[in-house]
Amino acid sequence: MTPEEFRRYGRQVVDRIADYLTGVEQYPVRAQVRPGDVRTRLPASPPERGEPYEHLLADLDTVLMPGITHWQHPSFFAYFPSNASGPSILGDLLSAGLGVQGMVWATSPAATELETLVVDWLAELLGLPERFRTDSAGGGVIQDSASSGALAAVVAALHRASGGKAGTEGLTRRYTMYVSSQTHSSLEKAGRIAGLGADNVRSVAVHPETLEMDPAHLRTLIEQDVAAGATPALVCATIGTTSTTAVDPVRAIGELCREHGIWLHVDAAYAGVSAVCPEMRWINDGVAEYADSYATNPHKWLLTNFDCGVLWVADRRPLVDALSILPEFLRNSATESGEVIDYRDWQVPLGRRFRALKLWSVIRWYGAEGLREHIRTGIALAQRFAALVDADPDFELRPHHPFGLVCFRPLRTDALALMEHVNASGQLYLSHTKIGDDVWLRMAIGAPTTTAEHVDAAWEALRAAQSR
Amino acid sequence: MTPEEFRRYGRQVVDRIADYLTGVEQYPVRAQVRPGDVRTRLPASPPERGEPYEHLLADLDTVLMPGITHWQHPSFFAYFPSNASGPSILGDLLSAGLGVQGMVWATSPAATELETLVVDWLAELLGLPERFRTDSAGGGVIQDSASSGALAAVVAALHRASGGKAGTEGLTRRYTMYVSSQTHSSLEKAGRIAGLGADNVRSVAVHPETLEMDPAHLRTLIEQDVAAGATPALVCATIGTTSTTAVDPVRAIGELCREHGIWLHVDAAYAGVSAVCPEMRWINDGVAEYADSYATNPHKWLLTNFDCGVLWVADRRPLVDALSILPEFLRNSATESGEVIDYRDWQVPLGRRFRALKLWSVIRWYGAEGLREHIRTGIALAQRFAALVDADPDFELRPHHPFGLVCFRPLRTDALALMEHVNASGQLYLSHTKIGDDVWLRMAIGAPTTTAEHVDAAWEALRAAQSR
Repeated sequence: MTPEEFRRYGRQVVDRIADYLTGVEQYPVRAQVRPGDVRTRLPASPPERGEPYEHLLADLDTVLMPGITHWQHPSFFAYFPSNASGPSILGDLLSAGLGVQGMVWATSPAATELETLVVDWLAELLGLPERFRTDSAGGGVIQDSASSGALAAVVAALHRASGGKAGTEGLTRRYTMYVSSQTHSSLEKAGRIAGLGADNVRSVAVHPETLEMDPAHLRTLIEQDVAAGATPALVCATIGTTSTTAVDPVRAIGELCREHGIWLHVDAAYAGVSAVCPEMRWINDGVAEYADSYATNPHKWLLTNFDCGVLWVADRRPLVDALSILPEFLRNSATESGEVIDYRDWQVPLGRRFRALKLWSVIRWYGAEGLREHIRTGIALAQRFAALVDADPDFELRPHHPFGLVCFRPLRTDALALMEHVNASGQLYLSHTKIGDDVWLRMAIGAPTTTAEHVDAAWEALRAAQSR
Repeated sequence: MTPEEFRRYGRQVVDRIADYLTGVEQYPVRAQVRPGDVRTRLPASPPERGEPYEHLLADLDTVLMPGITHWQHPSFFAYFPSNASGPSILGDLLSAGLGVQGMVWATSPAATELETLVVDWLAELLGLPERFRTDSAGGGVIQDSASSGALAAVVAALHRASGGKAGTEGLTRRYTMYVSSQTHSSLEKAGRIAGLGADNVRSVAVHPETLEMDPAHLRTLIEQDVAAGATPALVCATIGTTSTTAVDPVRAIGELCREHGIWLHVDAAYAGVSAVCPEMRWINDGVAEYADSYATNPHKWLLTNFDCGVLWVADRRPLVDALSILPEFLRNSATESGEVIDYRDWQVPLGRRFRALKLWSVIRWYGAEGLREHIRTGIALAQRFAALVDADPDFELRPHHPFGLVCFRPLRTDALALMEHVNASGQLYLSHTKIGDDVWLRMAIGAPTTTAEHVDAAWEALRAAQSR
């Protein structure tokens, strides 16, 4: 494809995306297809000859679009909402267009230096501690998601807990890590991948109402494991769990971690970015003093399309020591000078896109002011929805909803059936969770285009469905 | 940013990329900056107020571009060349614009079904065995890179070798894996991350000339390890090593793996895609019979910008069993029906972009014919360069160069000094490798815009530099 062909088709694709964003409300939120519907409408074999790009765009419209669940629909309230925005899409486009690979500083210095800058910017925006900044012993890195960040933290923690031996000798002792029943499944997955095994990922009890991790039970488990000869390597505290946005007591957990020399990883994948608002900084109580690593995903609530997860560490040495291997073909004078960061040593894969362009694009377009306004809008809409639920005797509201997520349930009908009914309607899209044996619905608000009208309409649809 | 603002800026960004692609040869290939040059020219703190997008584009020109090493320059011959193309950039743009997250089938069925289709298409294009197709027991998945694919393969192999116990109990026995001195460092890194430790990643000897893994030494190591009580879990055979594109004897290695019940992972990250040409299918001798997993990166030589790595497995169960965790919030009727694939279970992270759009876009635009032509052009240019080197008594050519990489060295001057001289000139960009104690230069040809003129000019620059 020549540059002029790219210019022509590129404008067509931009126009289509602009049209899509303008008209996204016309689509049912959830795809209305059955398994196989998309694939069976496409040729089973690849084309022998190249095709005009118009053919692909036509199939996009007729075959793919019906199979899309519209994460950018303002009535998408499932999981955590998509946070795509114009500048984030443009950042991805710039990254694809420049096509550089920033595995080490030398392979495109601007990719590394802009990344260092924007993770420091984000740390400043969120009021994160100085020791997470790159001019201290720590620093941040952009990865695809908090799952990958969690794995990197686990590997760094094992490196530290083993006195640097895990990377060479393997896990010759039994190591343990600690999560709660509310911790994201990616932590257990990280423990499995890193070779601990799920049996050594301890599940700490939570407070029955608030679902916060119980530090007293954490202490008991740690002491039992130590007595049994295991080496506790990592505790994960969550700020804003996926299920209900519970906030673990980071300070109390951190004190225990310090006492036992255990790595404290803070998973703030969703809620962390809310700290752009000073009134939300309470969520990070204890982080400055105790956290060894901290992850948050701008793609969950900060106007950045998937993927964009940031991991900070207070001390970069165990992370880099655990993940660094320097083959001959990557040796270069900049790396050997020690003056530069090579982000390949801060992540699992070697190669990396020019990831920072996207976050840079978002922060500059919106500014701190615009980012705070986005978070405050999401919180205000969640309060609005919570008030509607609370005023209705046919529904029960869970009292904790400081972010954009509201958990609630119908009292006169089956929650899952209600959810399936409204999801199937295409008007809105919700997801659910379970607390004990009880199913609760999750109304996650925070997409950039969601307004009070969308929230009110969702509530009306839910009320109508429950009184069917 | 409103859709209309996105339309306006999107067109500007498309135009800039088209202009960049048109004029990329005007830039020095390698960035001419020193550590800190980029960062110090940008504000230390994020903006309080949002800025017009024009400000960002101005900084892109003046601050970032001098810090870019131009992977899309036709005289970029380092590492393996970038393989961006117009349709691949458009595929990334479509993915960013639709903004869907395909962690499970239900969250956007088209993302999953198109991915299944294109990895099956690619398997067909490369002549890979039927058992890698999704309608068999196996299947493929798109990940960021072959590094991540290798980690997934190691975790699946440990699952199988442990009788399914590694994920729950952890690595309670000593497991070993086998690579050669020429294997990509990502395999050792995967072994470290997965908890085996580098000491249990055995380095098999290679043939001194061809640098192919020696199956006899592999047998010796396996037998020694088994006798010492270890459990061999995985052997990695490489088709086209990063250093010199050596091709390991997959069939002989595979026979050994079968004999001992060891997982055979084939890393064809760079060279695998050359099998779109029937005359290159010899590289996969033994794959159909013996490979448990196979990785290749369209972003290395198949007109697809970074990132795009495909991993196939012959049996998807150990992979999915090793990587699957199903939290309540992801439960859905499609998953429970067993009729769909949830690609979250085929990779480390949970979330995933609509990755298939890019590869679909590339395959449809170029067709099988266009892809073959691209590979053949790269090989022909490499032969042309090799002939130039071979005819010059001042240079030594390594005889093995069936792909796009030619290794050579100057006989009258220091190879690294020569490389640094030409790289600093900005005219071209090369990388190096070491074989034993000898430094060899790597001329990697295969970017879509590279022509005979660029290759000849590179050769002239090298000759001129060596007779300085």
